[in-house]
Amino acid sequence: MPRVSVREKLLAAGLETLRTQGFNGCGVQDITDAAGVPKGSFYNHFDSKEALGAAVVDQYMRASSADLALLRDTSLTPLRRLRAYFAAQVESLVAGRFECGCLLANFAAELADHSPLIRERVAASFTEWSLRLEEVLLEAQEAGEVAKDVSPGMLATFMLGAWEGAVLRSRVEKGRAPLDAFLRLAFDRSLEQGIPACTV
Amino acid sequence: MPRVSVREKLLAAGLETLRTQGFNGCGVQDITDAAGVPKGSFYNHFDSKEALGAAVVDQYMRASSADLALLRDTSLTPLRRLRAYFAAQVESLVAGRFECGCLLANFAAELADHSPLIRERVAASFTEWSLRLEEVLLEAQEAGEVAKDVSPGMLATFMLGAWEGAVLRSRVEKGRAPLDAFLRLAFDRSLEQGIPACTV
Repeated sequence: MPRVSVREKLLAAGLETLRTQGFNGCGVQDITDAAGVPKGSFYNHFDSKEALGAAVVDQYMRASSADLALLRDTSLTPLRRLRAYFAAQVESLVAGRFECGCLLANFAAELADHSPLIRERVAASFTEWSLRLEEVLLEAQEAGEVAKDVSPGMLATFMLGAWEGAVLRSRVEKGRAPLDAFLRLAFDRSLEQGIPACTV
Repeated sequence: MPRVSVREKLLAAGLETLRTQGFNGCGVQDITDAAGVPKGSFYNHFDSKEALGAAVVDQYMRASSADLALLRDTSLTPLRRLRAYFAAQVESLVAGRFECGCLLANFAAELADHSPLIRERVAASFTEWSLRLEEVLLEAQEAGEVAKDVSPGMLATFMLGAWEGAVLRSRVEKGRAPLDAFLRLAFDRSLEQGIPACTV
């Protein structure tokens, strides 16, 4: 087994702790305890909890990149590929009992007005995620699966917002209805009726 | 001037402080300082910061009820009325420089897994809000402005999610593009083209 560096331990424990407890709901000590490293070692690697938080956003995006691979599965049409991607996320949220939600949304809600450093990392991550969706939406427009009178970038922004809002609502409801409404309105209705989607 | 009770001062200061600082970003002392009352008086009115947080959710909904009155302005068609309601919210967020966002979303992100008391108040508030939208969406279906093959309840759930996600994204972008994408995809496209909306 390769040796896991203290920095990597702190990133992994930071992702888990910040995601489950919230940024202001935990301290550096909680993170070093979870990482199993002395508290003093934290500051050898990060200047502050905020600096770790910013690095954790990047770590979260790296961890999510395996899911994004579904968007390149060309055995499905573009719109069905997008649906498969989000449907997999829904099942993952159901399996996790709607806990934790999306780190980007959580940090956006908690820190957008308090940490320019983290806000910028979250904004960049949303932009990157939106661009991945936009690529597939452009393909879907070319394939006639999505209406062509709206730019794929605006469609992607709307879709990502609808997704994040549905995730947030499912967390307070502790139920999948908002996620199912998203899948139905964004994809199933147009796929079933064979009409170009304008829900996305 | 009627005398403002300590409880009312705490509710008003609590709404402002919890909304701007986040639940875990402030303490009882911050709230009593903002209210201009002694810290000791807090516990005469609320058992805990959590109990105040739950009461603040109701206070927030009461404060939002004036905005909801726009949904009863029958000088506009139902879909245009919904658009006017959300467009007014957009202008308010722009004027406020995209700060604070929506208290329900903020509490959902920060507390859904940590406070059953607040989670339930937030869930009930989302349900109430969604019902107000659903009533207008049903009218819009009857008026032929919204496609009829999806239940108005599901449409309202989707619309509210898309709105909350757009608000969250605008906070990290510090820009209105996600809110404009919401207005365009949820309303303008179908209003301009005279086609029943299925974006909502």
